[in-house]
Amino acid sequence: MITCDMAVSIDGYVAGPNQRADAPFGDGVGDSLHQWMFEAAEENAAEIAAITDAGAFVMGRNMFGPGRGEWDLDWTGWWGPEPPYHAPVFVLTHHERSPVQMEGGTTFHFVTGGIEEAVTRARAAAGERDVSIAGGAATVNQALAAGLVDELRLHVAPVLLGQGERLFDGVGRTELTPAGVRQTALVTHLRYTLSRTAG
Amino acid sequence: MITCDMAVSIDGYVAGPNQRADAPFGDGVGDSLHQWMFEAAEENAAEIAAITDAGAFVMGRNMFGPGRGEWDLDWTGWWGPEPPYHAPVFVLTHHERSPVQMEGGTTFHFVTGGIEEAVTRARAAAGERDVSIAGGAATVNQALAAGLVDELRLHVAPVLLGQGERLFDGVGRTELTPAGVRQTALVTHLRYTLSRTAG
Repeated sequence: MITCDMAVSIDGYVAGPNQRADAPFGDGVGDSLHQWMFEAAEENAAEIAAITDAGAFVMGRNMFGPGRGEWDLDWTGWWGPEPPYHAPVFVLTHHERSPVQMEGGTTFHFVTGGIEEAVTRARAAAGERDVSIAGGAATVNQALAAGLVDELRLHVAPVLLGQGERLFDGVGRTELTPAGVRQTALVTHLRYTLSRTAG
Repeated sequence: MITCDMAVSIDGYVAGPNQRADAPFGDGVGDSLHQWMFEAAEENAAEIAAITDAGAFVMGRNMFGPGRGEWDLDWTGWWGPEPPYHAPVFVLTHHERSPVQMEGGTTFHFVTGGIEEAVTRARAAAGERDVSIAGGAATVNQALAAGLVDELRLHVAPVLLGQGERLFDGVGRTELTPAGVRQTALVTHLRYTLSRTAG
């Protein structure tokens, strides 16, 4: 199964404008979208654990790091020496780079062939386990538009951001099936299943 | 208390493009946003009843009827001779019109002074009961931007529409408090309370 977890505002934003190295979620967001993970980790433990419970991950260039051009080879992601993935992570990019092996089982692989190739490689690496589309919004939107996602898990923070990077842009009309909901003080967890249309 | 119920797609649309008399919710929407009201009325009875459980209502010109210019005085709304409101309904408009009394207790009043005046008049008419901002999106967004809404009840249909009229446009950054959630097969009901910032 291919899953996707996204923290999102009620008005559908996953990040504010002007994402950059010192403000990876952009202006005006602060920790409003992720407060539930940091301040209420116990109450939301099941949903937090599920985010990284996959055999392989796919992520976009901007989620892995700032900048859009050639790689800064000293950059190994936002997550320190031991990223929370503990599995292969396939990073979409236009620039070739050798794999980067981190502590704790995470290896970043760089894929220049687009979302379908990244998902195919992630599936092969995951074996029987799930593949997770880790973000950001552009990568998730590509995967949704290509019909590659089986289960979408939205973590809706109780805030309207009003501007920024929007989930679902360009995905087009899609029917989903409600598959579960749980509300805590800082977040509402919504699960949906999708009928695969491609991939 | 001032409440607002809105049926909305997962990607935040309340109507498709090209709303008009023979397609009041626009192109490509069909009954996807309101299927839960018609096909699962029993399962969603509490939420449906709450929508019209107010002492007065405020609605926008486009929710009352098609057209943007002078009134067609034969037009008395989409709802037939006995609308489901059974209370005064204050319709925002740029064109004066005498009140229209319908069967069953609904009277349409036409307000040219904007959202604040409409809400003030609705409050006076409602007495101890709630005032409901009935829609459409532009009117709800004005009320939210003016800090006039105490409780927002979103009825999220499991569909991505991809285009149309979007809830929350222009509202700006707003903090809300989760106040309840319930999922049925065709809809997820989300309740939020807002801190009044004006009105």
